[in-house]
Amino acid sequence: MYILVSYDISTNSAAGKRRLRTAAKICLNYGQRVQNSVFECEVDEGQYLQLKHQLHEVIDESVDNLRFYRLGKHYKKTVESIGVDKRYDIEGPLIL
Amino acid sequence: MYILVSYDISTNSAAGKRRLRTAAKICLNYGQRVQNSVFECEVDEGQYLQLKHQLHEVIDESVDNLRFYRLGKHYKKTVESIGVDKRYDIEGPLIL
Repeated sequence: MYILVSYDISTNSAAGKRRLRTAAKICLNYGQRVQNSVFECEVDEGQYLQLKHQLHEVIDESVDNLRFYRLGKHYKKTVESIGVDKRYDIEGPLIL
Repeated sequence: MYILVSYDISTNSAAGKRRLRTAAKICLNYGQRVQNSVFECEVDEGQYLQLKHQLHEVIDESVDNLRFYRLGKHYKKTVESIGVDKRYDIEGPLIL
């Protein structure tokens, strides 16, 4: 299934900047970055639980926010992007 | 229908900061901010076209990115938020 993960992480402190880097690395293990703090992940239920748990361990709930959206199977037909698109097609050919 | 709007707007210049403020104002006309650059909007097809057009007019496509996701009717049951939640329930009671 496809999941959209977005986060707001307070970077007012060095610790916040570290949380931001760590959160990004975790998300990149499960999917691709489409905007600075937005990721599209293709995961099964087990991986989804793992992803949520790992991110939950990283953030400071008093100042940060994580949001997870279950995107439908056909979300690719419905998502629209305007402007510089950082997304690459997970199932597309990997050109080395 | 429910739409998720997220944007990456380059704020390296004064113009970029202006674009960011304007984009946020436009999105707030159609829905609520759930994270700094993420909004949940309840719109019909006409309003959705208007929202996209207004935002498209504002951004600099060479450096900014807009993403629109159609969330299903029942997205509220599937979205999960961890940490500081800026969201308020559109249909909930407005306490003055």
